[in-house]
Amino acid sequence: MTNSQLTLVQIDNYGPWTVTPNPRREMDLQTLQSRLFAELAQFVGSRDGYVFFTRFDNMVAITNGLDRADHALLQETIGNRYPVTISLGTGIDATPVAALEAATAGLQRAGSAQDGDRREVLAGEYLSEAARTDDDVRIAHFDVNDATGKYTDQLNEFDSFIQIEQGYATLMRYLREEHGALSFFVGGDNIISVCPAMDESDYQGAIDHVEADAGVELKVGVGTAATPHIAGMDAKHALEECRHEGTIVEVGHPAEGVDVTTD
Amino acid sequence: MTNSQLTLVQIDNYGPWTVTPNPRREMDLQTLQSRLFAELAQFVGSRDGYVFFTRFDNMVAITNGLDRADHALLQETIGNRYPVTISLGTGIDATPVAALEAATAGLQRAGSAQDGDRREVLAGEYLSEAARTDDDVRIAHFDVNDATGKYTDQLNEFDSFIQIEQGYATLMRYLREEHGALSFFVGGDNIISVCPAMDESDYQGAIDHVEADAGVELKVGVGTAATPHIAGMDAKHALEECRHEGTIVEVGHPAEGVDVTTD
Amino acid sequence: MTNSQLTLVQIDNYGPWTVTPNPRREMDLQTLQSRLFAELAQFVGSRDGYVFFTRFDNMVAITNGLDRADHALLQETIGNRYPVTISLGTGIDATPVAALEAATAGLQRAGSAQDGDRREVLAGEYLSEAARTDDDVRIAHFDVNDATGKYTDQLNEFDSFIQIEQGYATLMRYLREEHGALSFFVGGDNIISVCPAMDESDYQGAIDHVEADAGVELKVGVGTAATPHIAGMDAKHALEECRHEGTIVEVGHPAEGVDVTTD
Amino acid sequence: MTNSQLTLVQIDNYGPWTVTPNPRREMDLQTLQSRLFAELAQFVGSRDGYVFFTRFDNMVAITNGLDRADHALLQETIGNRYPVTISLGTGIDATPVAALEAATAGLQRAGSAQDGDRREVLAGEYLSEAARTDDDVRIAHFDVNDATGKYTDQLNEFDSFIQIEQGYATLMRYLREEHGALSFFVGGDNIISVCPAMDESDYQGAIDHVEADAGVELKVGVGTAATPHIAGMDAKHALEECRHEGTIVEVGHPAEGVDVTTD
Repeated sequence: MTNSQLTLVQIDNYGPWTVTPNPRREMDLQTLQSRLFAELAQFVGSRDGYVFFTRFDNMVAITNGLDRADHALLQETIGNRYPVTISLGTGIDATPVAALEAATAGLQRAGSAQDGDRREVLAGEYLSEAARTDDDVRIAHFDVNDATGKYTDQLNEFDSFIQIEQGYATLMRYLREEHGALSFFVGGDNIISVCPAMDESDYQGAIDHVEADAGVELKVGVGTAATPHIAGMDAKHALEECRHEGTIVEVGHPAEGVDVTTD
Repeated sequence: MTNSQLTLVQIDNYGPWTVTPNPRREMDLQTLQSRLFAELAQFVGSRDGYVFFTRFDNMVAITNGLDRADHALLQETIGNRYPVTISLGTGIDATPVAALEAATAGLQRAGSAQDGDRREVLAGEYLSEAARTDDDVRIAHFDVNDATGKYTDQLNEFDSFIQIEQGYATLMRYLREEHGALSFFVGGDNIISVCPAMDESDYQGAIDHVEADAGVELKVGVGTAATPHIAGMDAKHALEECRHEGTIVEVGHPAEGVDVTTD
Repeated sequence: MTNSQLTLVQIDNYGPWTVTPNPRREMDLQTLQSRLFAELAQFVGSRDGYVFFTRFDNMVAITNGLDRADHALLQETIGNRYPVTISLGTGIDATPVAALEAATAGLQRAGSAQDGDRREVLAGEYLSEAARTDDDVRIAHFDVNDATGKYTDQLNEFDSFIQIEQGYATLMRYLREEHGALSFFVGGDNIISVCPAMDESDYQGAIDHVEADAGVELKVGVGTAATPHIAGMDAKHALEECRHEGTIVEVGHPAEGVDVTTD
Repeated sequence: MTNSQLTLVQIDNYGPWTVTPNPRREMDLQTLQSRLFAELAQFVGSRDGYVFFTRFDNMVAITNGLDRADHALLQETIGNRYPVTISLGTGIDATPVAALEAATAGLQRAGSAQDGDRREVLAGEYLSEAARTDDDVRIAHFDVNDATGKYTDQLNEFDSFIQIEQGYATLMRYLREEHGALSFFVGGDNIISVCPAMDESDYQGAIDHVEADAGVELKVGVGTAATPHIAGMDAKHALEECRHEGTIVEVGHPAEGVDVTTD
């Protein structure tokens, strides 16, 4: 059974800040947001977690393996180096959306995202080392079949993007509604989902739905491990197997005690 | 009449690089992509252009005001500091999608995005100073009415994101198909579109369509100027006016000879 | 007794790279170097180590608390995101310069810093958890008395810098020759030294020497702990005490089991 | 005759900020400082200027080619994205140290570097386009003969660094006192000086002095142009010529109308 620890990263009172005292240069905001995300990607990623940019002012991280001290340090270092601060809410559940529900609720209870007095909240619970298992995190890594040949090298970039985007919009809604999985566009033609226990036919069902609804053909590799990094690396290898074998769904076996530095 | 100069930024042969010799750590790829985007946002943005992350391996920039030398320097500095290189295709047209079509075609003619020998292409044409006018760039800045109150403070973050995302997916397709405008999600509840000449009822039509189709209520401020930065700042001020006046569409007057540093 | 674990970070074959195929833009090299240092500062620093820019192509880190897996991960993530790679040599000794001697020798044995075939060396030994104690790392944090009043607000910036620089050049040589301590300029009027066991009169002696030789008046706070971060934070607090009490040398008591996130 | 435009970049009230409300993590300060410098290196460098980290809280830039609007934009973008702000003082003179004297005085007149109310000062004068010539900026690029063979591959890194550092400390003082030139260590074994009109024997004199006083053997390439980038690139090529010819001083001819992107 999976057991996801999800963290909601929320920039405190960000909307009002972007227009105070006057609207700030848009490209400065874009730079700030993307560098803040990169910062989280390094901090969380080098501890074998995953983080997704989502809306940038709210980001979602899979943090199995990061404890409260890690979260507190992350909050401190951002506060030391950026003109904004972040609040962190964490939740745990077999179903990812339920874990995120708990994570979000922790921040919502502390006040509004645009409450100027609510800063650097650190809320929620963290998996104890004893409770962790090699089945905790399941990562599905989707990509589009021959996206370069069918889209990038044929259409103008925006029309290529529309195809990918509509495929993503369909998949994200389907997996959330049917399975409580959370799916994130990660660039190119790639989508990464954190999933509950699902079997091969569930993934096939999702892929069929996206093709029927949005006309976009996907394939997927799936990995399971104690951390997002190991599960995700397993999923990437499974996806490579799809490419070589011409298959649509490849589910890897749970990795055990893999040394995280030996990829 | 508008006259958009659009640049397609394409990372050379990126897909294969991400899995050579083995799949690379996902959070390293996320860091690389978002920092590369931040780099472009500063380079282009400090010259009063705009750039959007789109798919990250392909990014779209509005570059009115940047000439060939600027593009060549951008390409050189990225090549000096990143493990990947970029190709840049540029196009000009009254309709944004047509400008991007030309920009994309310049790169496609030089080879596939995944052709290992096609590196650092610099293709296309640039607006001469003499041809530039204060009507060249039209920026529409949309946001969601009370997104914090209706979504962020109420739903779990993924369900908030689904709302924003479905609103965006609907708007991007509508504006591209009906008007040839290109729309980009820029974080939070914000969408920025580069538009051809459109009147107030056109914007109202788009907003009505998104509400009917996706159930998301938008408002929009519109600005027009010689550069994306000035047009975009004008659009932001118009959007602030929507907030204060409770209106849905505010179209600013073309800014003339505005000093770019006086925001 | 102290027990320093020092790591030499060396960019592989960097000199030749900077002029291949032609000399690269100097500001691109400066950007690359300073961002690479920032990267290390975050990676090492968030694990409670310290790193100093030294010559930028060769950097020195105090890595008590970081094991081989941490070093391997650092090497991997840099290789994934920069156009250059790094080699890492590590050494352990009661005297910092002897630890660095061992760290350097590990890389020198593997080949020249400008050997194109010598890449991503990972050499040396790491303190086992069992061997670590609360006395391992001694940090001395020096600053210049009233640098703002005497220099920054009075002289042109280069003449201020000359004063600080000559003070630093004198201190670094004295502490290395007399005690085997390693001293690093960290910006402003601050110098941080990693020291062996030394008593108050040793610090006073160093300060007297710098005043006599370079005419620069220093004060110093000293901390001792299991990690550079905790020892360094203790040193900063001791230096604050110098400021408040008007003293020249303050030596803190070894910190025990301090939670690293409670600064 | 040279005509240097120098800018002093000073972080406002930085010292007090670093210890408010408590001393901040040293590696966070190091990250902040080095990223701020990288930011300036890109902004100034992509406009063909040079910037040096000096003390990090005070940095010195050669800004021939950047006008008041560029400086104002730099100040704005830093203010938008960092937790600190910067003041910028600019001065012009045939002798670099005199230009910096004027630049510094502009900030000093506005208040102390640690005056909490003195923020984002923009003071001084800028070269008009009409006043600029191809002789304005003279850059000398020094390096150490066979530093890798004599130091890096032989000594421990700190002892190598001491050699380079003592050579730098000697050169910086000599060139400032004898010629009013400003010299900056830029990493590795490289020192870059901005110089007034000097002839070959002046450079030879400096090199002889450093060898006699610090025992470090240098060579130098010199370039002259309208901007630091072009002059500096010319200096790098001249230094390459020293390497190939075995000479000690090479002075390039002033570059005329060189396209800055054709390096």
